[in-house]
Amino acid sequence: MTMQLERPTGHDLVDLVERRVPGYSLEAPFYTSQEVFDLDVSAIFARHWLFAAAEAELPEPGDFVTVAVGSYSVIIVRDDDEELRAFHNVCRHRGSRLLDEPRGSVGNLVCPYHHWTYGVDGRLMHADNQPASFDRSCFSLRPVQVRSIGGLVFLCLADDPPADFDEVAARIEPFLAPYGLRQAKVAHQSDIVETGNWKLVMENNRECYHCDGHPELVSAYFPLFGYTAEDVPPRLRPAYQRYHQASAALRSACVRQGFPLEGARELDTRATGFQLSHAPLDGAGKSFNTNGESVCSRLMGSMTTDRFGDLSLHMQPNSWFHMLADHAVVFSVLPLAPDRTLLRTTWLVHPDAVEGLDYDVATLTRVWQATNQQDGTLVARTQKGVEDPGYRPGPYSTVEGDVDAFVTWYVSRLAAHLSR
Amino acid sequence: MTMQLERPTGHDLVDLVERRVPGYSLEAPFYTSQEVFDLDVSAIFARHWLFAAAEAELPEPGDFVTVAVGSYSVIIVRDDDEELRAFHNVCRHRGSRLLDEPRGSVGNLVCPYHHWTYGVDGRLMHADNQPASFDRSCFSLRPVQVRSIGGLVFLCLADDPPADFDEVAARIEPFLAPYGLRQAKVAHQSDIVETGNWKLVMENNRECYHCDGHPELVSAYFPLFGYTAEDVPPRLRPAYQRYHQASAALRSACVRQGFPLEGARELDTRATGFQLSHAPLDGAGKSFNTNGESVCSRLMGSMTTDRFGDLSLHMQPNSWFHMLADHAVVFSVLPLAPDRTLLRTTWLVHPDAVEGLDYDVATLTRVWQATNQQDGTLVARTQKGVEDPGYRPGPYSTVEGDVDAFVTWYVSRLAAHLSR
Amino acid sequence: MTMQLERPTGHDLVDLVERRVPGYSLEAPFYTSQEVFDLDVSAIFARHWLFAAAEAELPEPGDFVTVAVGSYSVIIVRDDDEELRAFHNVCRHRGSRLLDEPRGSVGNLVCPYHHWTYGVDGRLMHADNQPASFDRSCFSLRPVQVRSIGGLVFLCLADDPPADFDEVAARIEPFLAPYGLRQAKVAHQSDIVETGNWKLVMENNRECYHCDGHPELVSAYFPLFGYTAEDVPPRLRPAYQRYHQASAALRSACVRQGFPLEGARELDTRATGFQLSHAPLDGAGKSFNTNGESVCSRLMGSMTTDRFGDLSLHMQPNSWFHMLADHAVVFSVLPLAPDRTLLRTTWLVHPDAVEGLDYDVATLTRVWQATNQQDGTLVARTQKGVEDPGYRPGPYSTVEGDVDAFVTWYVSRLAAHLSR
Repeated sequence: MTMQLERPTGHDLVDLVERRVPGYSLEAPFYTSQEVFDLDVSAIFARHWLFAAAEAELPEPGDFVTVAVGSYSVIIVRDDDEELRAFHNVCRHRGSRLLDEPRGSVGNLVCPYHHWTYGVDGRLMHADNQPASFDRSCFSLRPVQVRSIGGLVFLCLADDPPADFDEVAARIEPFLAPYGLRQAKVAHQSDIVETGNWKLVMENNRECYHCDGHPELVSAYFPLFGYTAEDVPPRLRPAYQRYHQASAALRSACVRQGFPLEGARELDTRATGFQLSHAPLDGAGKSFNTNGESVCSRLMGSMTTDRFGDLSLHMQPNSWFHMLADHAVVFSVLPLAPDRTLLRTTWLVHPDAVEGLDYDVATLTRVWQATNQQDGTLVARTQKGVEDPGYRPGPYSTVEGDVDAFVTWYVSRLAAHLSR
Repeated sequence: MTMQLERPTGHDLVDLVERRVPGYSLEAPFYTSQEVFDLDVSAIFARHWLFAAAEAELPEPGDFVTVAVGSYSVIIVRDDDEELRAFHNVCRHRGSRLLDEPRGSVGNLVCPYHHWTYGVDGRLMHADNQPASFDRSCFSLRPVQVRSIGGLVFLCLADDPPADFDEVAARIEPFLAPYGLRQAKVAHQSDIVETGNWKLVMENNRECYHCDGHPELVSAYFPLFGYTAEDVPPRLRPAYQRYHQASAALRSACVRQGFPLEGARELDTRATGFQLSHAPLDGAGKSFNTNGESVCSRLMGSMTTDRFGDLSLHMQPNSWFHMLADHAVVFSVLPLAPDRTLLRTTWLVHPDAVEGLDYDVATLTRVWQATNQQDGTLVARTQKGVEDPGYRPGPYSTVEGDVDAFVTWYVSRLAAHLSR
Repeated sequence: MTMQLERPTGHDLVDLVERRVPGYSLEAPFYTSQEVFDLDVSAIFARHWLFAAAEAELPEPGDFVTVAVGSYSVIIVRDDDEELRAFHNVCRHRGSRLLDEPRGSVGNLVCPYHHWTYGVDGRLMHADNQPASFDRSCFSLRPVQVRSIGGLVFLCLADDPPADFDEVAARIEPFLAPYGLRQAKVAHQSDIVETGNWKLVMENNRECYHCDGHPELVSAYFPLFGYTAEDVPPRLRPAYQRYHQASAALRSACVRQGFPLEGARELDTRATGFQLSHAPLDGAGKSFNTNGESVCSRLMGSMTTDRFGDLSLHMQPNSWFHMLADHAVVFSVLPLAPDRTLLRTTWLVHPDAVEGLDYDVATLTRVWQATNQQDGTLVARTQKGVEDPGYRPGPYSTVEGDVDAFVTWYVSRLAAHLSR
């Protein structure tokens, strides 16, 4: 139902962006209008680096994945030199979609309509019935920018991607190194279509003010959310003691192995906004599990301890990542419509971990399958609310700073785009 | 299919309204365009009193119903002083829908996202993790106007509702008094989504030119539709005699009990257009039943006779009501999209009537369930026709005066809105 | 998903049309935007002659078919003088759809809403409850232009249809005469909704560059597609010999019976663009069948030979036809939405052919049922590709001249419409 939703024009969009009140949720059209959605695609998703896949999804030459960003489809393929390549998934003849499958392996890329044939480097190798004047070199597949940060594959649809990506990659890679993501194995992948705007999905991820609704997830963390060292109440003193000890142990482990510990928080101060944070876990302290125990008996990469906390990475505009001693779980958010969003979740384990022996998928994925489901319900409720003409933006609490940072980043990127 | 439907702009809307030909059906865009639909919501549904529920649906403190008017959702709740209150069903924090259920009972209103907690008077009672500067009194639920006429609940989404409501209520309440609707019980409620514009649903209700298609319904009425006393043909003389006697009996019953008898017809002469009419029934003359017999053995309110005819109330823009000695049946029409409309029908009986003993739902609801179904088919056919570019407005017959009155009211309200 | 599709305004439409590059596929908005779709309906489908039905579908007085052209519905009915008539399928009273059924037989046309009754000549014969001033003659059904070419029924929604229709009809009719289509019988009809723009459906039909994907269909034709007499390779010399002999035999058969043989190609040089081509078939050379054998043992019309090749007729904007010695198969393409198109296929046989004896439906329809299915898949893939912002128009090969002619015709008709 799209009744009486506002339909901002170009001029209104500038107004909407300019009158955003810091510390408050966005006005309704940001979540509901087709016009803002189209702007989001052109100003955010077509101009920034997007997390698209794990390298583990395409380990061998010829392996490919196709990624949908709205009505864009991008082929990411590993070429014969084992480099990542990305192309628009559209034949240069009359526009047929080349690959339908979400993943697979190819020698060449052959259009099923009239058999135009491209190499995995994108060059047109063959096309029947052409006039003498036909110049094949003019009809290579159109390339898309692609880069990996320690095994996490990002693409950018713009010809001039944000220039700070290399710097951000250099900051992040040392943290990821011990997890060996580049050589990891995909244990499971799940796609959920949430019935809400992509920004509601992101905002929901950026706070734990609602984490009462995630019993499986919060059991892994210390129950100190929203408290500072000063105001921990007496009943939580024991938990605080545990937290203090676990922090020290994590610090030692990092120092011992020569890995960085201090995170970074540059969520709204650069084009490629990101946040890194390394924190200990409660209970057994090993993994996302209702009792904190490991969910995979083979540790990641070069990991030498099974208690290495939760390394979390948040990136604007569309991803977050949790790296643990025994697995990693990575998330990408892709907009489908103003009120529909794809959330793709991928669980990675050591390449030698054996299903049924070292891990089982149900246990490995339990916490985040439940959490995603719970979040989907909350996002759907919020979408309904912000579509209601009775909605007015409301104030963030003291523990929703990362939501505000996401929204601030988003609005500043729109402003930069609109002022060009 | 929305092919080649006209898309009027603001200027065109004024033209469309101005060139309406009295006595003819409306031009196609009134029934098909998203733009007119949006205007209908802002000019009609967001500015006039709408029938929303029967008080019988929320008898106790804490009882609530939620009513959807397009993408608006309104909570109607009975507060601790047993007064009716209404609020936008949207949390003041980040906009989550508060209540999902169509009806129920609550102590407070607790948002399921971050547990902001409101009283049934709408005041924000609690919100976690707020800065010292947070002023709860600024974040009460946003109120909606709500009023009852003799047990029938109306809401108005405007801050300045039509001023004639009290006067209309005073005119109607004496007619409703004997039925005791405020204390009645809901015996059944049905929701049908008709595949036609809301005005086609209303227009269809406003005439009996098509009543050949309602065999169940017309069996309750005298077969004199379309005739005046002067031109009743010989074959209908006996029916006319019966009608004459039944009218006299109804008049006596009213006088005996001190109830008003003469109706009113102010359908297109005021903001809160209405029509009251009290007419005898044929056959056993008691109720909507294929043989005219009662469908509930416990009479309504303070009713002392089981033959009290059909008190019908029509209100602009979205409702009609039939009150009979043994039950009442009330209808609200709510727009969902240019070509989809919710028709909600509620059957009310005496609060002490016992299902299975005094009435059974199948018999109680048979006539109007059948009638609604038949009307839904006719509305869907008409929607298809008016979406056809081959459609041209046509002339009303001599027995479609109330259709013309509805359309005239509607067009004059649009004109008033557009001239602001 | 309609994400980030361009939304051209009136001015942009003119630009789009003007900058079309001959020899290249169209820009994306032609296939994706609602605005171009609306223009297609008004400029192409509401202004040109459309193939709508075979006369065989309505052989007797009172027989009718209803044809949907977008949200238009047209009744084609055979009147009491056995002439074809066509009317908008909308009641002149309040716009109800008159006939819901795709085909049937009537005495009069009675509106199911209020029983307004029209003759099969469209005149309003009866309407209840009218004032004295009511003039029935003002409320006849609104007529639609209708014509037959040798048993193929065309309609035009414009009041001023293209003037060259009679001339085109005169050119085509001698070719159709031997097939006796006017007296034929409908053996089968299939409707497929393809998930692509109507122009992609037409373009796909206008070339055999993709015919590798049609193994059933190509087995009927000589495997010489794309070759001229000069460049037939040695391995195809035997096929070329067979072709040469079959051509001579077809020519003799035509001369013997006095039928025209030389076709015509006026696809983009007139309003009613068409192409006629008469070609021999390979194998048994008789019909569309995997072995080239007949699929109906009763020959069409006055046919005296079972080897009469394939008479193909292509018409702009929405049809193609294949006439064979033993059956005919005729196709109409009707737009439903920018990305949805109805393809209706009708198989015709001699009126005395008996199902189960002279033909069975599975064998009769096998080749084109398979071909339609294969084409639907290709069209859907291409629709996805042209919706991708990564799509760019590409060059036609040397064997896609009829695609270019279709697109050239289409663009020139839009230009003519926009310049009015």
